[in-house]
Amino acid sequence: MNRNLVLRSLGLVLSCEAAAMVLSLLVSFYYNEGDTRAFAHSIIITGLVGLALSLVPVRSKTVGHREGFTIATLSWLLTAGFGCLPYMFSGALCSFADAFFETMSGFTTTGATVFANIEAQTHGILFWRSLTHWLGGMGTIVLILALIPSLKIAGMQLYKAEVPGPTKSRVLPRIAQTARELYKIYLIITGVEVSLLLLAGMPLFDSFIHSFGSVATAGFSSKNISIGAYDSLVIELIIVFFIIICGMNFALHYRALRGDLKSYLRDPEARLYLGVITVSVLLITINLVQSMGYSPGEALRASLFTVPSVITTTGFAIVDYDRWPDFSRLIIVILMFFGGCAGSTSGAIKNVRMLILFKSVFRQIVRLIHPQAVVPVRLGREVVSEEVVTSVQTFFFIYMFILMVATAYISFLGIDLISAFTAAAATLGNIGPGLGLVGPMSNYAVLPGSGKVVLSFCMLLGRLEIYTVLVVLSARFWR
Amino acid sequence: MNRNLVLRSLGLVLSCEAAAMVLSLLVSFYYNEGDTRAFAHSIIITGLVGLALSLVPVRSKTVGHREGFTIATLSWLLTAGFGCLPYMFSGALCSFADAFFETMSGFTTTGATVFANIEAQTHGILFWRSLTHWLGGMGTIVLILALIPSLKIAGMQLYKAEVPGPTKSRVLPRIAQTARELYKIYLIITGVEVSLLLLAGMPLFDSFIHSFGSVATAGFSSKNISIGAYDSLVIELIIVFFIIICGMNFALHYRALRGDLKSYLRDPEARLYLGVITVSVLLITINLVQSMGYSPGEALRASLFTVPSVITTTGFAIVDYDRWPDFSRLIIVILMFFGGCAGSTSGAIKNVRMLILFKSVFRQIVRLIHPQAVVPVRLGREVVSEEVVTSVQTFFFIYMFILMVATAYISFLGIDLISAFTAAAATLGNIGPGLGLVGPMSNYAVLPGSGKVVLSFCMLLGRLEIYTVLVVLSARFWR
Repeated sequence: MNRNLVLRSLGLVLSCEAAAMVLSLLVSFYYNEGDTRAFAHSIIITGLVGLALSLVPVRSKTVGHREGFTIATLSWLLTAGFGCLPYMFSGALCSFADAFFETMSGFTTTGATVFANIEAQTHGILFWRSLTHWLGGMGTIVLILALIPSLKIAGMQLYKAEVPGPTKSRVLPRIAQTARELYKIYLIITGVEVSLLLLAGMPLFDSFIHSFGSVATAGFSSKNISIGAYDSLVIELIIVFFIIICGMNFALHYRALRGDLKSYLRDPEARLYLGVITVSVLLITINLVQSMGYSPGEALRASLFTVPSVITTTGFAIVDYDRWPDFSRLIIVILMFFGGCAGSTSGAIKNVRMLILFKSVFRQIVRLIHPQAVVPVRLGREVVSEEVVTSVQTFFFIYMFILMVATAYISFLGIDLISAFTAAAATLGNIGPGLGLVGPMSNYAVLPGSGKVVLSFCMLLGRLEIYTVLVVLSARFWR
Repeated sequence: MNRNLVLRSLGLVLSCEAAAMVLSLLVSFYYNEGDTRAFAHSIIITGLVGLALSLVPVRSKTVGHREGFTIATLSWLLTAGFGCLPYMFSGALCSFADAFFETMSGFTTTGATVFANIEAQTHGILFWRSLTHWLGGMGTIVLILALIPSLKIAGMQLYKAEVPGPTKSRVLPRIAQTARELYKIYLIITGVEVSLLLLAGMPLFDSFIHSFGSVATAGFSSKNISIGAYDSLVIELIIVFFIIICGMNFALHYRALRGDLKSYLRDPEARLYLGVITVSVLLITINLVQSMGYSPGEALRASLFTVPSVITTTGFAIVDYDRWPDFSRLIIVILMFFGGCAGSTSGAIKNVRMLILFKSVFRQIVRLIHPQAVVPVRLGREVVSEEVVTSVQTFFFIYMFILMVATAYISFLGIDLISAFTAAAATLGNIGPGLGLVGPMSNYAVLPGSGKVVLSFCMLLGRLEIYTVLVVLSARFWR
C-alpha cells in the first residue's frame, strides 16, 4: 500500500471540501443569519487538516486498486466527518449521529434527512446541505471512472467507450480527460436547470438547491413538503426531466453532445430504464384512479413525478405517496431496487445489472434445454464476460443480505417492519425517503442514534457499490 | 419428445393416486361420516383415467431430461387436479379454486389451507388432505433423485454419493435402487413418529395426521390451532425433533443408518442449517423475554418449536407468532427464505444454496484484492463448479423476482403489503402460513379465487425448484 499517496489524496479531497465551504460562507454572509462564524471555523479546521495531509511527501505515484479502494472509502468517510462541522458549530444539529447522518446522506446523494423542520434552517446551512449533494455527485463521476470498472460493471460501457487502449499506462491520463468532459456535462446540466427553474418562477436560492438535488439524483429540498410546496406543473416537469436525464449513463450524454443522438436508443440499459418508468407510471396511474378516486390527470401528474424520482434514487416528492394504496406503494418499493443506469449519479442496483440478471435467467433456461450449448449473456451486440455475470449476481445477493441485516437492526430498535425495511432500502439505495415513519413527508429524526449510524453506513455501502467497502474491511486486504 | 412415455408415466402416477384414495375411503368407511360415496367416485374417475393412460403403448424407453421436466410438471398438476375430487364431491370445498389450492398445497407439502374450520371436516377428508402431504413428500424424493441433479445443486450431494458411475446407462437402475432406500427411510421415520406420538398420548388418527405433516415438512393439522391444541411439551418435542430430521438431507440419514454418524457433522450444509436454527432460537427467545414479558422457559419453548417449523417449511404452530414483536416476525420472514437442506422434503431456497451464495461473496472480495488469483468456491473439501455457482445465483434472483411479481398481484387484489408478501413467500417456499391475514392461526380463505390460483402456481414453482416449470413454459422447449 502506498500510504503516503493515500494520505495526500485525502488531503486534496479535504482541501476541496474546505473550498466548497467557502461558497456556503459567502451565502451565509449574504443572508447574515448568525451562522457565519460556524462556517469560518469549519473552513479553518477542514482546510488546515487538508493542507497538512496534502503536504505529505509522495515518492511513488503508482495507484493500484488497493489504493483506489482505500481512497474511495476513506474520502467519503472523512468528507462526511468534516462536513458535520457546520451543522454542529451552528447548532443546527447537536448530536454527532444526526450531523453525520445528514452529511453522509448529502455526500452519498441519498437525501434522507433528520431535519423535522427544514424551513427553520438558515440559508447557509441549507446551501451547504445541498452543496454536499452536488459535490457527492461529482465524486461519483470520478468513482465511476476510476474505481467501479475494477468492480466489473457499473461504469463498464463508459470505460469501454473511453478507454480503448490495451496498455495500462494510457488509462490514467485518459481518465483525467474523460472526468473533465463529464464534469463539463455535469456543470452544463446544472446551469441549464438553474436557468429554467428561474424562468419558471422559482427563486434563485431555491433553484440552486433543487438543481443540486436533481443533477446528483439526491433529493434534499429547502421545503418541508419538497417540490409539492411550489404546486407548479411547469416546475415539476422541468425537475422530472432533469432527474430522468441524470439517471442515465453520462457517457450517452457525452456521445449525444457530439451529435450521436441515437446512442440513447441503442443502449439496452437506457431502453429498460425508460421502459420500467413508463410501465410503472401507467400502473400507478391506473391504481390511483381506481382506488383513490384521483382524476386521470391528477393521477398521471403524481405518478409521472414520483416514479422517476424514486427509480433514479432522487427522492423529491410532490405528494405523500406513503398514503397511496398498497399496490402503488409496492411498485415504489420495487423501483427502489432498480435505481437508474450505470454511469449516472443514481444509486441502488442499477438497470444494467437487472438486465444481466434477467438475461442470465433466460440463459439458464436455454442451458437446461440444450445442456451442451454454450450460451453467452449479451448486452446489445456485446458479450458479457462470465466474470461480470457472476460479479453482478453476487452483487444482487450481497445487496439483499445487507438489506436484511440492516432491516433486522432497525426493527430490533422497535421500528415497524415496513418503516424498517424501506429505511434500509432507501439508504442502501441512496434514495432518501422510504415509507411509513420515514415516508416522503416525514424524516429520519425518530430513529435512535445507533440506527442513524447503521443507516449512514448503508448509504456509504450503497454509494461505493458495496464491494469497495467490504474489500477495505476484509482482513485479507491488509495482509 | 417421447410423448407416449410421458403419458404412460402420468397414467402410473394417477393410478397410484387412486390407490392412495382407497386408503382414505377406508378411513371414511370406518368413521361413516357421509363422504364414502365422494371417495368412491373420485377413485373410479382417477383410476380409470390413470389406467387408460398407462395402457398407452410405449416403443422407446429413453427418458431424456425433456421428458423428465414434462413429467414432473404435469404429474404435479394432474395429481392436484384429480386430488380436488374428494373435496368437491363431498362438498367440503365447493369452488374449484379452493379445492385446487388445498390439493396443490397438500402435494407440494406447503400446508397452506383455505379451511376456516378444520375441525368441522370429516375424518376421511382430513386423512386425504394429510395423505397428499405424505405422497408429495415421496414424490419430492423421486424428484430430488431423478430431476433436480440436472438443475444443478439440490440433490447434488445425494446424487454424487449414490451415482458414482460415469456412464449414463448405470444411472437409471441406480436411481431406482436409491429411491427404494430413501423410501425405506421415509417409511421408518413415519412409523417411529406415529408410535412416539401415540406413546405421548396423541390419538391414533391425529398421530398419523401430524406424522404425515412432519416427515413431509408440510404442515396440515387436524386442529384449528395446530399443535397448540395439545398443549403438551412432550408432543411438541417429538414433532420438532422429526421436523428437524426431515429438514436435513436424507442422504445423511442413509449414511447414518449404515453407521456413519459423523456424516452429519461433516456436512457443511447441515452445520449451517443447525447453526441458523440455534441463532434464531436464541434471538427470538431474548426478544420475547424482553418485549413480551414471556418467562425464559415459555419463550424458549415457543421459539424452539416455531423456528424449526418455519425454516424446514413445515408451518406447524403452537403459538400465534404473528403477534410477536416485529424483530421476531422479521426473523421468521428471513427463515422462510432459508428453508431446509437439499435432498430433504423441505422447500424454499435451501441452506446449501445460501452457503454457496455467501461463499461466492467472499470469493468476489478475494478476487478484487487479488485480481489474478483463481479462487474456486468450495463446499467442505469439494470444489463447486462455476456452472453450479451461476445456477445457484440465478436461482436466487429468479426466486426473488417471482416473489415480487406474486406479491404485486396479491396486493393488487387489495391485500395489505405484509400479508401479500408473506403469502407469496410462504407459498413459493412451500411453508404454509405467512403473517397478517394469512398468519399461523389464520388461513387463506379470505383471498379472492384468482389470488388462490396464483399462489397455487407459486407452490408448484417452489416445489419444482422453479426452473423445471420455466423450462416447460418456454417456447424454445417445444421447438
